[in-house]
Parts: sequence; C-alpha cells; structure tokens
Amino acid sequence: MHVSPTDPTPDTVLRVGVLGCGNVGAAFVALVDSGAAAISARTGIDLEVTRIAVRDLARERPGLDRVAFEKRVTTDAHAIVVDPEVDLVVELIGGVEPARSLILAALSSKKPVISGNKELLATNAGELTAAAESAGVDLLFEASVAGAIPLVRLLRESLAGEHIVRLTGIVNGTTNYVLTRMSEEGIGYEEALAEAQALGYAEADPTADVEGYDAAAKAAILAGIAFDADVRASDVHREGIAGIEARDIAFAHRLGYEVKLLAVAERCDRPIDGAERAGDPAPSVAVRVHPAMVPAAHPLASVRGSFNAVFVEGDAAGELMVYGRGAGGRPTASAVLGDVIDAAHHLREGSRGRSARRRSPDLRPIAELHSQYYLTLDVADRPGVLAAVASVFGDHNVSIRSMEQTGLNTEARLVFITHMALEADVSATLIALGGLDSVERIGSMLRVIGPEPDGS
Amino acid sequence: MHVSPTDPTPDTVLRVGVLGCGNVGAAFVALVDSGAAAISARTGIDLEVTRIAVRDLARERPGLDRVAFEKRVTTDAHAIVVDPEVDLVVELIGGVEPARSLILAALSSKKPVISGNKELLATNAGELTAAAESAGVDLLFEASVAGAIPLVRLLRESLAGEHIVRLTGIVNGTTNYVLTRMSEEGIGYEEALAEAQALGYAEADPTADVEGYDAAAKAAILAGIAFDADVRASDVHREGIAGIEARDIAFAHRLGYEVKLLAVAERCDRPIDGAERAGDPAPSVAVRVHPAMVPAAHPLASVRGSFNAVFVEGDAAGELMVYGRGAGGRPTASAVLGDVIDAAHHLREGSRGRSARRRSPDLRPIAELHSQYYLTLDVADRPGVLAAVASVFGDHNVSIRSMEQTGLNTEARLVFITHMALEADVSATLIALGGLDSVERIGSMLRVIGPEPDGS
Repeated sequence: MHVSPTDPTPDTVLRVGVLGCGNVGAAFVALVDSGAAAISARTGIDLEVTRIAVRDLARERPGLDRVAFEKRVTTDAHAIVVDPEVDLVVELIGGVEPARSLILAALSSKKPVISGNKELLATNAGELTAAAESAGVDLLFEASVAGAIPLVRLLRESLAGEHIVRLTGIVNGTTNYVLTRMSEEGIGYEEALAEAQALGYAEADPTADVEGYDAAAKAAILAGIAFDADVRASDVHREGIAGIEARDIAFAHRLGYEVKLLAVAERCDRPIDGAERAGDPAPSVAVRVHPAMVPAAHPLASVRGSFNAVFVEGDAAGELMVYGRGAGGRPTASAVLGDVIDAAHHLREGSRGRSARRRSPDLRPIAELHSQYYLTLDVADRPGVLAAVASVFGDHNVSIRSMEQTGLNTEARLVFITHMALEADVSATLIALGGLDSVERIGSMLRVIGPEPDGS
Repeated sequence: MHVSPTDPTPDTVLRVGVLGCGNVGAAFVALVDSGAAAISARTGIDLEVTRIAVRDLARERPGLDRVAFEKRVTTDAHAIVVDPEVDLVVELIGGVEPARSLILAALSSKKPVISGNKELLATNAGELTAAAESAGVDLLFEASVAGAIPLVRLLRESLAGEHIVRLTGIVNGTTNYVLTRMSEEGIGYEEALAEAQALGYAEADPTADVEGYDAAAKAAILAGIAFDADVRASDVHREGIAGIEARDIAFAHRLGYEVKLLAVAERCDRPIDGAERAGDPAPSVAVRVHPAMVPAAHPLASVRGSFNAVFVEGDAAGELMVYGRGAGGRPTASAVLGDVIDAAHHLREGSRGRSARRRSPDLRPIAELHSQYYLTLDVADRPGVLAAVASVFGDHNVSIRSMEQTGLNTEARLVFITHMALEADVSATLIALGGLDSVERIGSMLRVIGPEPDGS
C-alpha cells in the first residue's frame, strides 16, 4: 500500500486494478464504488478501484458513472499489473492468453491476484499456483467456478482436514434450465433449448454448455482443489445432454428420478489409514461430466432452473451441499469481492492464505466406473427378441434389475435398468447388442446414481 | 510452538489441548490421532492433541486408544489453558461456566481458542470476541452452530463484502425430523416425537428442541455474525412446534407448502447507499424462530429428516443455501478441525483471522413483521358466522386471500390464508376473534413465507 504524502488517497487504502470490464468486471467495479464505506465499516478494509483495463474504450458500461470510469480506464492491461501504485489485481478477462501472462506478471510484481477465469484455471492451475507460491502472494479464484457459491473456500478451508470422498455437482445453469423445463413441462430438448436461448440463458451456439465443456472445466478446477491434484479440463470424461429425450425424462419420473447433468469428481483409493494416504504420491481420482438419473429425494434433484449446487461427501463431515447462483454479473462479482477482502486482509497482516502443492493424479478411466445404468433399445417387436437381448447382458456380467417394453410393432422399445455393473462391461454389452439383427437402434444410456432401491 | 530440544515432539508440531471429551471431543481427538499424517500432507500443518481435560476419568471413551488417552488426560482443565506447552485450546465442554472462564484464561495466555459451545456463544459472544481481539489471537466457533455446515466462514469470509439481507434456516435436526415424519407419514406430533425419541434423535425431555430454544441460540449466533451485532438467545422471538397438528400439515400440502421450524434473521433497514449504512451505528435487525409454511419449490422445503440448511439472501450474491449434518460427533468434529487448521495457519504466519466489532442492534419486535398468515378457527356451524369473522379481519386491516370450511357441525373449522399483513394487526384480529361467541377456539397460526401465489 502506498505512502506518497501528496496523493489524495489515504495510505491505508488498498488500490485495486481490474483487468476486463464485461458483465462481471463492471458489476465488481460498481460494488466497490458504491459499497466501499460499508465494506470498510464491516471489515476494516478500505478498497478503491484505481485502474481498469478494457479492450474497447468506446463500449458502453451500464451501471458505471461515465466520468469516474474514464478517469481510470486504459487499454494497456500490462501497465496495470506492473504499476507500483496498484496493490492487487483482479483478472476478469477470461480465456488463456493474455490473461495467463498478465497474471504471471502481476504475481512476479508481488501483487496478489484474484481471478474469475474458468478456462485458465481449468488448464493452467498448476503453473499459476506454483508462481503464486514462489512469489509468496495470494492467487484466489472463488469466482472461477459456480459464481457466488463459495466452493473453493469450502474445499480449501472449511474442509482442510477432511478426507473428501466425492463431489457431485450441477455446475452449468444452461443445461439445468433446459432439463428443468423438459422435466416440468414435458417438452423436448430442442424446444427447451430454444426457450433458453430466447431468454438469454443459452448462447446462440450452445455447444460449450450442452456438450458439457463448461461443466468439465469446472469439474477440473474443483477436483484440483478437493484432491490437491493437477487436473485439467481435457482430463475429464465428458458427455452432454443433446441426446436426452422427453420419454427418457418421463420414464425417470415414473421410477422416482430426475435427469441432471452432473459433474462428478471422486477419490478412487480408499486407504486404510492416514499414514498410508500421506505416503501416496499420486491421488487416484476419477472426474467426469455426464447426464444421470438422480433419485427424487436427493438434494440435487430439487435444484431447479439455472441454479447450481455441489454435493460434497466427506469421511467425517458426511454430506454437505452448497447451492446458489452459478453465474451472472453481480453474484460472480460478490465472489470476487470476498476474495479481494481476503487478500487485502492478508496484505495488511503481512501473511497469505493457504496454498497446497498439486500432485499429478492417477486418473482413472470411465471404463472402471461401477454404476447402475438406464439403457433403451429400439427393437423388432417379435418373439424371442428379449431372450436374445437378455443373453447378451448376461454374457457380459451385466445383471438386469428391471425391463419394460414400451410401444408396439415398429415403435417397440425396451427400457432396462441394470444392477451395479462395470462401465467396461456395459460398453461391451452395447457393442454386442448393436450387432443383433433384432436391435434397430441403441437409444439412451444414463448412469443412475444413489443406492439400488431394494437396498442390495 | 515449543522449542525444547529434549522434547520428542518436533518443534513445528502444534500442540492442541482439548477441554471436554464427550461425543464431539472424542471424535475430534480420534480424527487428529488417526489423520495427522494426512492433514500434514494436505495442509503442511502438524497437529497433535497433547492434553485432554475431562470431568470423569472413569468414563469409557469409545473409539480412543485407552493407553494413549490416559497419557494425556486430566481433570484440571485450567492447568491446560495456562500450560505453556499447549499452543491452542479446543473447548467442547458446553454451557456457560466453567467454559467462559477457561476460554478467557486461554485467550489472555495468548492461545487461540476453537469453541463448539452454542450456549456460550449465544449469550457471551460480544465479551469473548472482544477478549480475543485485545489478546490478538483467534477465537473461532464454526462448530457452535449447525455442525459440519460452514456457516460462520460463509458469512464472515465469503460474504465479507456482501450486504446480507436475510438468513432463513432449518437449524434444529430434531424438529425437522419430527416435521418430516408428520409430513411424509401423515402421523401426529406426539407419535412422531416418540419415534424420534426411540431413535435417539430427541431427548427424553425434548423441550430445548421442540420449544425452539436450541434454534433460537443458533439464530442469535448467526445474526451476530451476519449483521456484526451483539444478539443474544434471549433477544430472539421464539415459538415451538408442539402445537402443529397433522391437519395443518395436510392443509399445507394441499396448498403446495411444507411446514418447517425456521430460524430467521433479517435486516430491517434498507439504506439508500453504502455511505449511509456505514454511518449507522445500530443495525436494525429482527431475529425469530417459529414454524412456517414454506413453498414446496423453495430449497428449504426439500430439507428432510435430521438435516439442517440455511438459506442466505444477499444483495449482490443473490440466493445461497448451505446444507448438511447439523449435529453428530464426527460432522461437528470436522468443523472443529477446519477451525483448528485455520488458527494453526495463522499462528505459523504470525497473523490472525478476521474479527468484526459488534454493535448493539436495534432489535425490531415481532409485532412489526409483515407476512402472510395461515390461521384456523373452530367455530359454531351456523349461518352468519363467516360474516362475523370476516368483518373482524376487515376491521383490523387484515385481508383474506382464501377461506375454506372443513368439517361440519361440532367439527366445523375455518381455515384462512391472509394476504400480506402486519403481525400486530393479526394479533389484534385473533384477540377480537377470541371474543366472538361463534368462535370456540383459535387453532393454529403459521406464518407463510415466499411471494403470494398470484404474484400480488
């Protein structure tokens, strides 16, 4: 913090440089501009946004005073990160470059960095946290995953001593909105998606959301924190929701399930005791994104619309869930502000927050998953078909919990729920079924979470 | 941390003294004993429980190694808090004294204190936080409210810069279990309570739970943190669940509600801007515990059984909810451990966590509440009764949204839902109704949360 006697800013004020002034950046600047006195009263921290970097000077910034904005704005982001009169950098540009280089430059100038950059954290977290560690300053990124929901702090601080077993999250608001509309209105995927696009919940090109790329990036960030592992978005097994049909959801309802796009990160090793675990250099983890059938009584089943939630299972803490707005300018800016106050507190104390070394994980492939499965087959409606199909399941060690035929003649469809089975065996079953004359099409395949209904 | 060269404990080990070894204390000691290597690997913090104070040396401590336990145990709690070879004190005795004196002694010996003591924090938080502040050490109490759910850290850190508007929580597992059973099985209060007692979810004397005392203490602690206010359990308006009848819940279901015991803490001032808020010496808050009708689509409605959850409304963050195990040895011990690691990190850094000055709040009485109300009246079944009753509502400015008669003759009952009304007016209405010849008994009165169904 600065000490120049001629500067009108008091020397206890923490001067924040903001990189990027889109939806979240503008909301953050407005929160600090209007709330500085209240923040000071509550926390004793005096904040001021003194510099703002943008790409386009001409763009309108609704919600910000034009005169006050123009005094602080520049197109030279690099000048901000090396400015000795900036104490702390907030990076809200998004994307890998130039954000990565700017953050590294800020850290090497000993400035704490708060980032809301999901793409960057999902690919370069190891590099960035190591740079923060060697600079001895904070790199905080609560806003990079699930907006206002305090997941990073939960995993890193509240559960610092916890053996985290599994995270199961709804971390993409667009797909949850689409699936909620399909579930509540009985409409099809295309109709629900068009509605989400009309309301601005989905992009014109919805690929990043509906194919699970956004959720996979968030899953990588969360798995990295939960398991101290260097997990990247490209490590995450990923399936989207485009293949979900209205009849899949109707069938799920009848059996007492909701269909949700889940991001799952779980520990695959279950060590006998802490000493063994501490000696293990490579945490064994599985990280995946796919639609799944979730029991109606599970807390995630009632997460509706564009809300997000993450369900955490810990060895001692048991089951926890955090729920909230996973996106949006003001909610995300609120998470940025929480981190800024944290870093400011550390600067004032001459300390810094926790860091964790990240190890290369032993990533387990989806083929090793044990789950129950929902499978549909379009079949020829004639005697003997079920026997042929059932024998293929049996030949591959996949045990059927329930089977039902829906439709007749050319509409005949078999709907199966399996007992717990190995994914590799289910994949082999589907390949073999595809080779049967009587099977016209393999339909949906959804994993079913939760205990088997009969408790077996 | 100690430096004695003859001591076998390495000088980087943080030595923890534990006061009280009941359910939570024993679980905490077991977590550290078995998990120290893993905690060290994850956080770089080496913990050891070196001393344990108990009241009864002879009592069995299941889950703890007898020999290792006896080496550390004493009945002299005061000796632990002043022992120079104890770096940090964990207080899990419960109750006001001697816990209060022991904590004050530990703080004045410059030892950070972690407490899980709800009763004490709900009455003496102002005194204790001031003592920690003047000693310059941490006083952390995540475990004092809602077990493993990280509410204190959420409010104090994640939402440090947030203008928190309202907290609405299910913070008592016993009453939520009873209400869940009444809701799902259609059974009465007495039967559900007996079942909870048989399962160990309710005490033989259930007063503290069913009359809302436990929830009121938690509400006071949460309001204190959310609003930086010195709120005590005795400041909290409190109503229990003993008057809830099976037919109230059946009626709630029909209208799309669940009945829950809620702890609510809300800000009553809505300042124009931050500067005004910062200048206000007395936050205006209302804190209350009462059963309420919660819309089925509200996230709190699906919190079942003995789980707890708190729904937070913030000005920028929007709606957040945290959910989990609100009680139990291991979940609560997990919250204690998170705080211990926090304090250990601060000790190592030579820093301390955030503190907030607490102001005396302007506590608003329940009479000022604006809410919708569910009211039932047992009435004489004869012409003209409804007109007489309705005119009493009208005379007191309480507008009726819906009315329904259930039962006939001597069983006749009128069930009302009001539009938004002032509690003082509703109270006056009930007094006046009690004076009518045709009203035999005032039945239930439940506040109804959420927007009015027609959006008005």
